[in-house]
Amino acid sequence: MKTVYVDNNATTSVMSEVIEAMMPYFTESFYNPSAISGRADGVDASIARARRTIVEFLGASDTKEVTFTSCATESNNWAIFGTARANPERRHIITSTIEHPAVLEVCKSLCKIDYDVTFLSVDSDGNLNVDELMDSIRPNTLLVTLMAANNETGVIFPVDRLSAVVKERDSNITFHTDATQYVGKLPVDLNRDFEHIDLMSFSGHKIHGPKGVGGLFIRKGTSLTPLLYGGNQESGRRSGTENVHGIIGLAKACELASSNIENMQSIEVLRNQLEKELLKLFPSALVNGAKANRLPNTLNIAFKDIDGETLLHQLSQYGVYASNGSACSTGSLNYSHVLSAMEVPYDYIAGSIRFSFSRLNSLEDVKAIVETMKQIKEEIQK
Amino acid sequence: MKTVYVDNNATTSVMSEVIEAMMPYFTESFYNPSAISGRADGVDASIARARRTIVEFLGASDTKEVTFTSCATESNNWAIFGTARANPERRHIITSTIEHPAVLEVCKSLCKIDYDVTFLSVDSDGNLNVDELMDSIRPNTLLVTLMAANNETGVIFPVDRLSAVVKERDSNITFHTDATQYVGKLPVDLNRDFEHIDLMSFSGHKIHGPKGVGGLFIRKGTSLTPLLYGGNQESGRRSGTENVHGIIGLAKACELASSNIENMQSIEVLRNQLEKELLKLFPSALVNGAKANRLPNTLNIAFKDIDGETLLHQLSQYGVYASNGSACSTGSLNYSHVLSAMEVPYDYIAGSIRFSFSRLNSLEDVKAIVETMKQIKEEIQK
Repeated sequence: MKTVYVDNNATTSVMSEVIEAMMPYFTESFYNPSAISGRADGVDASIARARRTIVEFLGASDTKEVTFTSCATESNNWAIFGTARANPERRHIITSTIEHPAVLEVCKSLCKIDYDVTFLSVDSDGNLNVDELMDSIRPNTLLVTLMAANNETGVIFPVDRLSAVVKERDSNITFHTDATQYVGKLPVDLNRDFEHIDLMSFSGHKIHGPKGVGGLFIRKGTSLTPLLYGGNQESGRRSGTENVHGIIGLAKACELASSNIENMQSIEVLRNQLEKELLKLFPSALVNGAKANRLPNTLNIAFKDIDGETLLHQLSQYGVYASNGSACSTGSLNYSHVLSAMEVPYDYIAGSIRFSFSRLNSLEDVKAIVETMKQIKEEIQK
Repeated sequence: MKTVYVDNNATTSVMSEVIEAMMPYFTESFYNPSAISGRADGVDASIARARRTIVEFLGASDTKEVTFTSCATESNNWAIFGTARANPERRHIITSTIEHPAVLEVCKSLCKIDYDVTFLSVDSDGNLNVDELMDSIRPNTLLVTLMAANNETGVIFPVDRLSAVVKERDSNITFHTDATQYVGKLPVDLNRDFEHIDLMSFSGHKIHGPKGVGGLFIRKGTSLTPLLYGGNQESGRRSGTENVHGIIGLAKACELASSNIENMQSIEVLRNQLEKELLKLFPSALVNGAKANRLPNTLNIAFKDIDGETLLHQLSQYGVYASNGSACSTGSLNYSHVLSAMEVPYDYIAGSIRFSFSRLNSLEDVKAIVETMKQIKEEIQK
């Protein structure tokens, strides 16, 4: 049975070029980059090259602006806690109700220690209200943290514009974006459209790189307290022996994403084709975030009166691997906080399925999904 | 030219068995363990097996007691910050002056926010004074954090006995040990000799596993606030998509270490042989920690009036890779804080070299090092 993997917002397979790039760092180049032998210098130089690749990919100015972390969750925790600890006089944070748990839970934990957090709502398309954002800014607002694109629906927040208006109001507010789902799918230029963003989180395993590595962009001049103290690796910003193979793999994944990013239209063609076919097959289905600006690879579709989890299991029996939303909350069988915030009707919310494509998918995959859904529909109707 | 790598306390090469065990998790088993498809369940089961392997290796009782992190630095930061945040009423920490920076710097950062830290001194052999430890305990002592073995000298702190006496005095004090250098070199039994230890940090890349993965043992009943919040992976204790290949690799490295740990005597033979030969060659040399109980693999030797860094570069030109102490402080050319604390004489401290063996070293390596040192000695005397 052919496998159709369309859960790429959860994680992606590691490209063979990435594996190949990492391999030497397990064996002949296993040295600790902080050691003083010449061979360790070689590893250190490889990390420097990897950092340059990523800095160029993101359109940043300076290699000092990219720090490696263990995952986007660490990057998000660091961005928020680190900003709070560096600027203790400001005690108000603005975020949205549909952020990833790695932002929401950090904000909630700060609520317990005398921080005020404004959770901005979204409309039924998943869009923010800019006026609501601006109205929520206070004299002691520390941080605005808004995701670049939602992991469940693919809905894009216009963080370029949002960061510009926030900074115009108060340039001392730090603007963080969790761009885990955005980076690698759409071009990022931190010196052009994203020029008002101070902190940006990203991850390796969402872009055909390895798990266990992520990054945080920290714009020059941003005050941020470290999350991890120790041997002063990463210019003192993030201690801990460097995850050398992970860093090399992340850079290679960025390089590959970079050369494929112009082809995201072809992924959008797949997504749109699947969307059209499924709406034809299930006329009562709704596309979550249909009217919003979305990532080209993500389709979140709600089937009326169908149990999404059962549907997913049926799909997987046919070799189709999709998701019922986020794979980032283990064992969570609660309804999606994102779809709840969008007020997706109750008879739809339990039947929402996320199909997320990558550049490894093809039109054949779309056909296979549609055929499978036809069979499942027949089974349901029996 | 044959390479002799004797810097295994800095990092180790990844065993081929470990690489082999990790490979499938880049490709056919790349799934996110939190996804709901059957294949993701398979990855989740692999992580559970890996955790059981490590729990058995460490002699812990329960798989819930081992949490995966990104490195020992994260484990140390988490153990200390997490204990402090979970028990805000106690504000005094006891540690030693010769801890790894990932403990020292965390303690120093807490000093800035109204914590008192006692830094216990060591004698010229690197040993702690137990009376000094006991005298430093206060009614509001939160945490005692002492390393199991020193990375630079290999000197072992008797954390089994120290934890017992601390707990006897006040069972509410949390006892943490950074066992990064100890685990894999000497047997650990958390339910026997280490039964009074609440928290224990360890790492993958020091035991022929991959970089980018570590662990924290958290004894049942220990109150610890998470360092990273988010999707509630690791039973809610450490959020972030699991570094699957890293976890699998760490478990395999533990398994291999376990079956080799009885052979550490053979490593001690190498170390002792090198020690003897070098003292014969340089009669004025001193072994740092000579009279202390030391790790079987570590030799820290101080040559009089010799610049250690120059010596290291000479050694590396002959293919011998050793260290001048810790590789964990990047670019640090200061004299070792460990040797300073041991009051190694000034005309020796700059000439201290650490040779750290692993089970991949042989008697041939010792011979090669001795021959190289003979040649260097001749060059020096010219």
